[in-house]
Amino acid sequence: MKEAKEKRMDTHFQKELQILEEDLLKMAALVEEAISTAVQSLVKRDSDLARKTFEGEDQINRMEIEIEDTCLKLLALRHPMAADLRFITSAMKIVTDLERMGDQAVNIAERAISLNQEPQLKPYIDIPRMAEIAQSMVKDVLDAFVNSDSKLARSVCEKDDMVDGLNDQVFRELLTFMMSDPQTITRAVHLMIVCRCLERIADHATNIAEDVIFLVDARVIKHHSDTKGGTTGDNKSVEK
Amino acid sequence: MKEAKEKRMDTHFQKELQILEEDLLKMAALVEEAISTAVQSLVKRDSDLARKTFEGEDQINRMEIEIEDTCLKLLALRHPMAADLRFITSAMKIVTDLERMGDQAVNIAERAISLNQEPQLKPYIDIPRMAEIAQSMVKDVLDAFVNSDSKLARSVCEKDDMVDGLNDQVFRELLTFMMSDPQTITRAVHLMIVCRCLERIADHATNIAEDVIFLVDARVIKHHSDTKGGTTGDNKSVEK
Repeated sequence: MKEAKEKRMDTHFQKELQILEEDLLKMAALVEEAISTAVQSLVKRDSDLARKTFEGEDQINRMEIEIEDTCLKLLALRHPMAADLRFITSAMKIVTDLERMGDQAVNIAERAISLNQEPQLKPYIDIPRMAEIAQSMVKDVLDAFVNSDSKLARSVCEKDDMVDGLNDQVFRELLTFMMSDPQTITRAVHLMIVCRCLERIADHATNIAEDVIFLVDARVIKHHSDTKGGTTGDNKSVEK
Repeated sequence: MKEAKEKRMDTHFQKELQILEEDLLKMAALVEEAISTAVQSLVKRDSDLARKTFEGEDQINRMEIEIEDTCLKLLALRHPMAADLRFITSAMKIVTDLERMGDQAVNIAERAISLNQEPQLKPYIDIPRMAEIAQSMVKDVLDAFVNSDSKLARSVCEKDDMVDGLNDQVFRELLTFMMSDPQTITRAVHLMIVCRCLERIADHATNIAEDVIFLVDARVIKHHSDTKGGTTGDNKSVEK
C-alpha cells in the first residue's frame, strides 16, 4: 500500500482514498465506543447507558452503507489497480466486520439490561478486561490497515488468543456457579453470552488483521494457525 | 443483474462471470454438506463423521481464497460497471460469509465430539430441524443471488425468524434441564453453543439475503426490521 500511496500523489483520487481512510477510522472509533458503552452499562449496572449503545448502532449502520457506497463508486469510476484495488475491496470487507462488531455490542447491551434487573452474580473483572482487549484490537487493526503495518496486525492476532483464554476462564467459573446453585443459571448464561459476544468482536478484528497481513505481505495467513510470524510451507502467494 | 446478463452476451467476460457463479454455488454446496455432516455427527453420535467436517472445512477455505482471487482479477482486468461490479463485490462478501458458516460447522462438530463421549442428554429433535432450515437458507440464498430473485431472498430472511424461534425454544428447555439437575449443565451448555452456531449460520445467510435484495431492488433493507416486503419510509436509495 505504501507504493500505492506514493503513486496517489496529490491527485483527486488520492483525496478520495484519504477520505475513505478517515471514514473507516471514524467508524472504528464508533465501534470502540459502542463496545465500551455496552460493557460499562453492565459493570456500572446502568441500563440507560445500555440504551445509548442502540443509538450508536444506528450511526454505525449508516456509516457502513455510506462507505460501501463510496467504495462501489471508486471501483466504478476510478478503475483502481493493484494496491488501490485491494485497499478498496478490503475496506468493503472491513466495514462489514465493523458493523457486525456493532451488532455484538448491542447484544451485550441487551444482556446488560436483563442482568441489571437482578442481583449481581459476581464482581465483573475479567469481562471488562476482555472488553478492553477487544477494543484495543479494533483500534490497532484499523491503524495497522491504514499504515500497512503487518507487525501490528500480527499483534492483533495474538491478542485474540488472550481474549479466548479469558473467555475460557470466565466460562469455567460460570459453570461452577451454575453447578453449585441453580438460582444462578439464568444470570450465568447471560454472562456467558456477553463473553461470547466479546469473543466474536475479537474474531472480527482478527479477520481484519488477517486481511491486513494479506494486503501488506501479499501472503495468505488465513486458515493457518501460525499467525505469529515466520513462513508456513503452504502459504499461497497471491501475487500474480 | 438481469440487464447485466443480457449485456454479457457470449463474450469472454460473460464466461468468466459464469464460472464465478458456478464456483459460488459449489462452495455453498460444500457449506451445506458441512452443516449436515456436523449435525449428523451429533444426532448419530458418530465422531468419525464429525472429523469429516474438518476435511470439508479445508476445501471451503481453499475455495474462499480462489474465488476472492478471481474477483480481484476480474475487477482489475475487466473494469466491470454497474450490475457486474456489484455482482463481483457481492461475490467477495458472500465467500466471506460462506467461509464463516464453514467455521460454525466445525464448531458444531467439535461440540459433537465432546457430547458423544457422554450419555445423550435428550433426544435431538429441534436441533436437526434448525440445521435443516439453516441448510435450506444457504441453498436458497445462493439461488436467489444467481437468479436475482429478491422474493426468494426475502423468504430466507423469514426463515431466520424460524431459526431464532427454535433457538429460543431449545434454550429455554436446556435451562430447565440445568436447573433441575446440575449434572446436565456441561452437556446443556455444549448444546446451547451448537444452537448458537446454527443461529450464526442462519444470520450469515440472512446477511447474504439482504445483499441480494440490495442488488436486485437497489434498496437497502439492511438495518430495517421490515424484511417482508413493502417499502419503509427511510429506505436509502443507492442508485446514483
